[in-house]
Amino acid sequence: MSGNSFGRSFVVSTFGESHGPALGCVVDGCPPGLPLTEADLQVDIDRRRTGVSQFVSQRKESDQVRILSGVFEGVTTGTPIGLLIENTDARARDYDKLRDRFRPGHADYTYQQKYGMRDHRGGGRSSARETVMRVAAGAIARKYLATRLGVTISGYVGQVGKIILAPVDPAAAYDNAFFSPDPSRVPELEEYVWNLRSAGDSVGAKVTVVAKGVPTGLGEPVFDRLDADLAHAMMGINAVKAVEIGDGVAAAAQRGSEHRDEMTPTGFLSNHSGGILGGISSGQDVIVHLTLKPTSSIQVPGRTIDLSGAPVGVVTTGRHDPCVGLRATPIAEAMLALTLMDHYLRNRAQNADVKSQTPAI
Amino acid sequence: MSGNSFGRSFVVSTFGESHGPALGCVVDGCPPGLPLTEADLQVDIDRRRTGVSQFVSQRKESDQVRILSGVFEGVTTGTPIGLLIENTDARARDYDKLRDRFRPGHADYTYQQKYGMRDHRGGGRSSARETVMRVAAGAIARKYLATRLGVTISGYVGQVGKIILAPVDPAAAYDNAFFSPDPSRVPELEEYVWNLRSAGDSVGAKVTVVAKGVPTGLGEPVFDRLDADLAHAMMGINAVKAVEIGDGVAAAAQRGSEHRDEMTPTGFLSNHSGGILGGISSGQDVIVHLTLKPTSSIQVPGRTIDLSGAPVGVVTTGRHDPCVGLRATPIAEAMLALTLMDHYLRNRAQNADVKSQTPAI
Amino acid sequence: MSGNSFGRSFVVSTFGESHGPALGCVVDGCPPGLPLTEADLQVDIDRRRTGVSQFVSQRKESDQVRILSGVFEGVTTGTPIGLLIENTDARARDYDKLRDRFRPGHADYTYQQKYGMRDHRGGGRSSARETVMRVAAGAIARKYLATRLGVTISGYVGQVGKIILAPVDPAAAYDNAFFSPDPSRVPELEEYVWNLRSAGDSVGAKVTVVAKGVPTGLGEPVFDRLDADLAHAMMGINAVKAVEIGDGVAAAAQRGSEHRDEMTPTGFLSNHSGGILGGISSGQDVIVHLTLKPTSSIQVPGRTIDLSGAPVGVVTTGRHDPCVGLRATPIAEAMLALTLMDHYLRNRAQNADVKSQTPAI
Amino acid sequence: MSGNSFGRSFVVSTFGESHGPALGCVVDGCPPGLPLTEADLQVDIDRRRTGVSQFVSQRKESDQVRILSGVFEGVTTGTPIGLLIENTDARARDYDKLRDRFRPGHADYTYQQKYGMRDHRGGGRSSARETVMRVAAGAIARKYLATRLGVTISGYVGQVGKIILAPVDPAAAYDNAFFSPDPSRVPELEEYVWNLRSAGDSVGAKVTVVAKGVPTGLGEPVFDRLDADLAHAMMGINAVKAVEIGDGVAAAAQRGSEHRDEMTPTGFLSNHSGGILGGISSGQDVIVHLTLKPTSSIQVPGRTIDLSGAPVGVVTTGRHDPCVGLRATPIAEAMLALTLMDHYLRNRAQNADVKSQTPAI
Repeated sequence: MSGNSFGRSFVVSTFGESHGPALGCVVDGCPPGLPLTEADLQVDIDRRRTGVSQFVSQRKESDQVRILSGVFEGVTTGTPIGLLIENTDARARDYDKLRDRFRPGHADYTYQQKYGMRDHRGGGRSSARETVMRVAAGAIARKYLATRLGVTISGYVGQVGKIILAPVDPAAAYDNAFFSPDPSRVPELEEYVWNLRSAGDSVGAKVTVVAKGVPTGLGEPVFDRLDADLAHAMMGINAVKAVEIGDGVAAAAQRGSEHRDEMTPTGFLSNHSGGILGGISSGQDVIVHLTLKPTSSIQVPGRTIDLSGAPVGVVTTGRHDPCVGLRATPIAEAMLALTLMDHYLRNRAQNADVKSQTPAI
Repeated sequence: MSGNSFGRSFVVSTFGESHGPALGCVVDGCPPGLPLTEADLQVDIDRRRTGVSQFVSQRKESDQVRILSGVFEGVTTGTPIGLLIENTDARARDYDKLRDRFRPGHADYTYQQKYGMRDHRGGGRSSARETVMRVAAGAIARKYLATRLGVTISGYVGQVGKIILAPVDPAAAYDNAFFSPDPSRVPELEEYVWNLRSAGDSVGAKVTVVAKGVPTGLGEPVFDRLDADLAHAMMGINAVKAVEIGDGVAAAAQRGSEHRDEMTPTGFLSNHSGGILGGISSGQDVIVHLTLKPTSSIQVPGRTIDLSGAPVGVVTTGRHDPCVGLRATPIAEAMLALTLMDHYLRNRAQNADVKSQTPAI
Repeated sequence: MSGNSFGRSFVVSTFGESHGPALGCVVDGCPPGLPLTEADLQVDIDRRRTGVSQFVSQRKESDQVRILSGVFEGVTTGTPIGLLIENTDARARDYDKLRDRFRPGHADYTYQQKYGMRDHRGGGRSSARETVMRVAAGAIARKYLATRLGVTISGYVGQVGKIILAPVDPAAAYDNAFFSPDPSRVPELEEYVWNLRSAGDSVGAKVTVVAKGVPTGLGEPVFDRLDADLAHAMMGINAVKAVEIGDGVAAAAQRGSEHRDEMTPTGFLSNHSGGILGGISSGQDVIVHLTLKPTSSIQVPGRTIDLSGAPVGVVTTGRHDPCVGLRATPIAEAMLALTLMDHYLRNRAQNADVKSQTPAI
Repeated sequence: MSGNSFGRSFVVSTFGESHGPALGCVVDGCPPGLPLTEADLQVDIDRRRTGVSQFVSQRKESDQVRILSGVFEGVTTGTPIGLLIENTDARARDYDKLRDRFRPGHADYTYQQKYGMRDHRGGGRSSARETVMRVAAGAIARKYLATRLGVTISGYVGQVGKIILAPVDPAAAYDNAFFSPDPSRVPELEEYVWNLRSAGDSVGAKVTVVAKGVPTGLGEPVFDRLDADLAHAMMGINAVKAVEIGDGVAAAAQRGSEHRDEMTPTGFLSNHSGGILGGISSGQDVIVHLTLKPTSSIQVPGRTIDLSGAPVGVVTTGRHDPCVGLRATPIAEAMLALTLMDHYLRNRAQNADVKSQTPAI
C-alpha cells in the first residue's frame, strides 16, 4: 500500500535512506534450490556503483551486500532472502543548506507536503541510492532467469542529451563507463559530460533494455499486462519520464499494415511490438526504452521557496551525477529481471500445466 | 494475481468477453455517502460507444449500465458496487474464419499460447470492448474526485497518424467525433480516416489526458509512485505502446536548468514535470500522454500461421475501428480517474492527519 | 483493502445485498481447460438454499446462477468468470421497523458507525444471503480439486445447542436437512429446532469440514500458513466465533508426547494436528471445526438504541433461521475449497518444480 | 504470496532463520510523526526473550534491535522502517542429529516436502525465534495505538495443561514469568513446568489477549472482518490450534436471547461478542483466546522417518520451551496490535470522513 514492495509472486520489499545506517530488502517467493552467493549479487551492484569514474557521483560506497537469510549451504531454501548494505560514506553535513529549502524539480517539496516532514540528507528515501537494493534483488531474478530459463538481459544508453548513440555493439555497453553501445563515441561522451559537470548542470538520457529468450505467455491481462507492469517498473525508477515498448512513440504515425509483425512457422518477420502482444510475451525479444530527465541537483542557481513558503534561492552542492541516466542501465536491467521473474511465477500459478496445440515459433 | 483487478484501495475487478453474454465489474472501496445514479455512469460510457459515427466500429451496442449493489436510496453505502452491461449486438459468426488462425499483431497467438485455448469471437477478453467497464467504474471515481476534491479530468487526441493536432481548444475535444482539440481540423481528419477505412488499413494515434486540481501528496514511493501507477494504468489499455509524463521523451535532450520547474510562493514557473515530483503529485496539472499503435484488425492481407503452426494468409473482417486511438480518450480519462482515486484513498490511509508547515503553492 | 475479495491466486470478489437486485462475483485466476457448467455450481447452491424445510428461513429464492464470462464452449478459458444470481423474493417492507433501530448482537450498529449509513433491508450486505456467492465460487474450486487432484470435501453439523452429534455416518450429512452425521437423531433435532422457532429464539452450533486427499506442501509460512488462512476463511463466515484445527481447544490440556502424530513409512499414526504442520499440509485429512453463535434476529424482545441513540425495544420479524449453523455446512465447505484451491495455485507459483527426496507417506 | 508479509496498509515483511546470521523486517505504511526509539521496541522484545527463567528455552540471545531506516531525528518519517536483530547464541551443532530425520508433530517433514529441502538448524524459518520480529514490529503499532488512539493491549495465560488460571488480576500477568493472571498460583505453575521439563515432555496452553479503547468501525466485511483477520493473525503464530472471539466455542450451546449483547445509551449490557459485530469493532473490548499445542520438540522418544523415508526413532535435544504457550503472550499481543493498526489505516482509507448521526455508546 505504501509503495515499498514490488511484485506479487516474487516480492521485493526495500528500506533505507541515502544517509541512514543501511539499505536492505526482503525477497519473498524465490523458488528453492537456486545456488546463490553474495558474489552473484555483487557483480550488478558494482556496475551501478558511484565513485568509479569522474562522470558519476563521487560518493565512495563499497556497497558490500550481505545475505542474512533464505540461503542454506549455498542454495536458496524458499524462505525469504534478507539483504543488507551498510552506508559507509554518508556525509550528511553536505546537505545542511537544504534542510529548510526545496530543490526545484526534486522530491523535496512533495515529500514535505505528503508526510509533513522529510529526511533532507541526500534526499533521504527519494535518493537514487535506494536503487542499490533493486539491483541486488534483481540479480537473484536474473540468475534464476538465466540458469533455469535461458533468459538473458542487457541494456545500453541510447541517448545522452543531444547525442544519439546507435546500437553498433550493444554488448560493449556492458563495461564502459557510459554504457554506450557505440564504444567509439566514448571520448565524445567524456568531453560532453565533463563540460556539463564543469557548468554545474545536468542532462537527460535514454536507456534501452532487452530480454532475449523470454518464454511465451508471461503477462496477466487485462490490467497487469506484461507491458503495463514493465511500465510500472520502469516509471518507478528515479527520474524516468517516459516508457516505450518496441516502437513506442513512433507507432502513432504508423499504419497497421506496417506495424503488425507477420508470422511464419519459423518466426516473426519483424518486432515492432517489442515482444508483447495483448499484454502477453510472444517469445520475441522484449524491448523497453526509458527516458530519464536531467537531475535537478545542479549548481546553477534557481528560485524556490523555503519551509515557511518564503522565496529563496538554491544551489545544490553535495556529490551528484551530471547525468543520472548513465547509471540507470543496471537499474533498468534489474527492474526488467524482477518483472519477468514475477510474471514467470504468476503465470505458473494459473497455467503451470497448459499445453497449446500450436508450436512456439 | 491474474490481472483483472485494478487498484489497491479503490479496486475495480472486471469480467466479460466481446461476444459473451455480458460485461461487468465490482468496485470495492468506494467511500460511502456519494450520490450515484446509473445516469452518472452513462455519460462517459456513451462517449466511448461504438456505432456513433462512421469513423469508428459499426457495432451497435446500447451499453446500458445497471447498478446492482452498493447504492441505497441514491447514495453509495461503502459496500461493493456491482455493475453490469449486457451484450446485445454480438455477431460471433463474423469471426468464424479466425477460429483457426492468428491475426498478426494481435493477442490471438499469445492468448493461445498462454492459456492453451482462446475465445476467438471478436478477440474474446482481449477486445477493446472490455474497456467499457473501466469507463463505467472510472465515472464513479470521476464523480468523487470532482464533487469532493474539485479535480477535473479531460483529454484529447493529439495525433492521428501523421496529423499533429495542437491543443488550440482542448475543451472542444469533449464532444467532437475525433476528440480533436482543434475542431477546425475535423474535416481533414474525417477525410483521412475515411480513406484509411476504404484502404482497409489502420493508423496509430496519440492521446493526452490532464487532471486539474489534484491535491499534493498522491503517490507512494518508491515503487508505486503516482507516475509509475499511471504508466501501469495507461500501458494496460489496449494498443498503448508508450506512456509519457509531462515532457516525456523530450526530457532526454533537456538540461537540468531547463527542465526543473522553479518555485515561488505563488506557484511553479513551469510544468515540465507533468505535475509529479519524486513520484508524488505536486499540485500542478497532472499531464499524461499515451501512444496507441494502429490496430492489427485490418483488411490488408497478411502472413500468419494457423493453430497447427502451418503458414496461412489472413484478412480481418468484422467491425473494427480504423484508429483505436479515437475512442481511447474516455478510456484514458477513466484510467486517470481510477488511479488518482486509488491514490487519494491510499494516501489517506497512511497520512490522513498530516499537516505540513509549508503552505501549498 | 475493503474486504470483498478472497484469495491471492484464485481470487473471488463478491457484491450484492440481501434485498438489492442481485448478487454476483468475479472469479479470477481459474486455470483454463476445466469443463464447467451452471449445473456444476447449482448443486452446492441448492444445498444452502432457504425455504427448503421448515427449519430454515422461509424466504423462497430460486437461486439460479448464470455464468457470464470465462467459459467458452463448456470449458474455462483462464479469463475471469463472472457469476450472477438475481434476487426474486426480497420483501424489503418486512424490515421497515428496523430502519431506525439496531438489533442487539447484529451488524446493524457497527455498519452504521463505520459507514455513517446502512441498507437496513434484511441486513443489507451483512446478511447471510451474501454467502450464496461464496458457495457458487467454491463449487468451481471444488470441481477443480476433485477432478484434477482427487481432493474431496465434506462437512457436517456436530452440535446444535446442547445436542452433540457424533460422526456416526458423516456421509449421510450430505443430504439431510440438518446436515447431521447421525441421521438417527434427525427427529430429535426437528423437535428441538421446532420448539426454538416457536419460542422465537435461536441457538448456536458447531460445524466440521474435512478435506481428504490434500497434497503435501500447501500453506505459506510464516503468516499465510494454511491453518491461518483457513481461520481467516472460516471466521469470515457470518456468526462464526471460533475456529479449531484438528484437536483445537483440546490441545491446551495435552502433552507433547500425546499430541504429536508419529510417522511411519506407511503413514501417520494419528491426526491430532488436523493435517497441518508448521502451517503446511502434511497429506493427512485437513480437519476444521467452527462454532457459530445463535443469530440475533429473534422475536424475544430486547433492549437497544435507535439512530439518535435513544433507548428503544426491538423484536425482529422477517424470515430468519432459528439456527444459522444448519445452513453453514455448504458455506464452510466452499470456504475450505476456496482456501485449498488458492493455496494450490500459490504453492505452484513458487514451487512448481520442487521434488523432494523423501517419499510422501 | 509466499506468506512473509502481514497486513495491507501497515505491512510487516519479515525474514530470518533460527540459526542464520540475523532476523529482520520492513514495516511499511507507518504514519509519519510518531516519536520512536529502539527502547520503545526493546520492552516487548525483552518480554518474549528466552533464557530469562528456568521455565523457558535456555538459549541466551540479547535480542538488541536496531532501527535502520524510517526514523529521522527520533520521529517516523513515513518511509519504511527497517529493523534488525543479529543472532548471537546460535548453536547449530545441537541439531546435527535432526539433519536427516523429521520430528513428529513438527514442521520438519512439511518444509522438506514443500521446498524439497530445509534448514534443519533449530527448525530454520519454522522456529518460534521468527516471532521476535513480530514483537518488534508490533511494538510500533502498539505505540501508535496507545498514544494516538488510547488503545491499550494486554494478555495473559489462562491455562497451562490441566491448570486453569482465572483472571483474578490480569494486570499482574505483565511481569511474572508465567504471564499468569493469578499470581498466587505461580508456585504451582513452577512445580508443574519443572516436572514437565524433567520428564522431557511438553504441554499445551491457552492465552487471552484484550484490546481496550478500540474505535468503532474497524474491520472490512465480508472477507476481511476484524475477527477473520484476527483469526488469521493468531492462527499464524507457531503452535496455535484454535482461535476464539468473545465467548468462542461456548457460543454453540447458547441461545440468541442469551448471547446477544443488549444496548443502552450508556453502553452494552454484556460482551459475549468479544467486541466485534458483523466483523466490525463495536467499541467494546476486543477479546481473543488462542490455544497452543504442546511443542513436539521433546525428549520422549518417538517414531518417525528419515529423509529416505525409512523408519527411525527421534529424541529432540537442543534448547526448547516445555510450554511454548508461556512466551506466546507478548507475541499474541503484538499480532493483536498489528491487526488493529492495519485495520485502523484500512478503515481510514475508505471512511476517513464518515460521520454517523448515532452517538457512540
